[in-house]
Amino acid sequence: MVLEHALITVRPDSHEEFQAAVTRAREVISAAPGFRSFALRRGIESPDRYLLLVGWETLEDHVPGFRESPAFAEWRSHIQPFFEGQPEVDHYDPLPGLS
Amino acid sequence: MVLEHALITVRPDSHEEFQAAVTRAREVISAAPGFRSFALRRGIESPDRYLLLVGWETLEDHVPGFRESPAFAEWRSHIQPFFEGQPEVDHYDPLPGLS
Repeated sequence: MVLEHALITVRPDSHEEFQAAVTRAREVISAAPGFRSFALRRGIESPDRYLLLVGWETLEDHVPGFRESPAFAEWRSHIQPFFEGQPEVDHYDPLPGLS
Repeated sequence: MVLEHALITVRPDSHEEFQAAVTRAREVISAAPGFRSFALRRGIESPDRYLLLVGWETLEDHVPGFRESPAFAEWRSHIQPFFEGQPEVDHYDPLPGLS
């Protein structure tokens, strides 16, 4: 499983709305082909920063798969209004015996 | 559970040795009070970068707990020789229903 790793900073006054929007947006991403897991956590040292970890069967299920699907626009429409800047997104492969 | 999130860059020629060292270092951290989970993954876009996720019962189990214990020096002695620069480390709280 490939892990999508995203660091998202949101506007300081928008945490309650952002978290509610993620709950709705999760329904969209969960239905995507190759979706495997979802977790959002909030920063302790930087409370306006969130760590989003999404598991995908393959990298291609996320990019280009989900990213170029109509569902991506819907996913982003829920959460993007609360972003401060653009999320930093990259991907990580498992390591046998260590992941 | 609090998640320790570390981004570690290693020297390009040291991947095999680093991964073997992590296997040994994991034994050390796994025995620490409050340790809950361990996962290391390797970057796809940046193959010299690793994502380390360690679950701790509380933040204090990691800092100051593990960090100020003799086991921390042992953990670091295994893996530090391969670092390129210092790891970026922070912590994330779970969100009810989203983590």
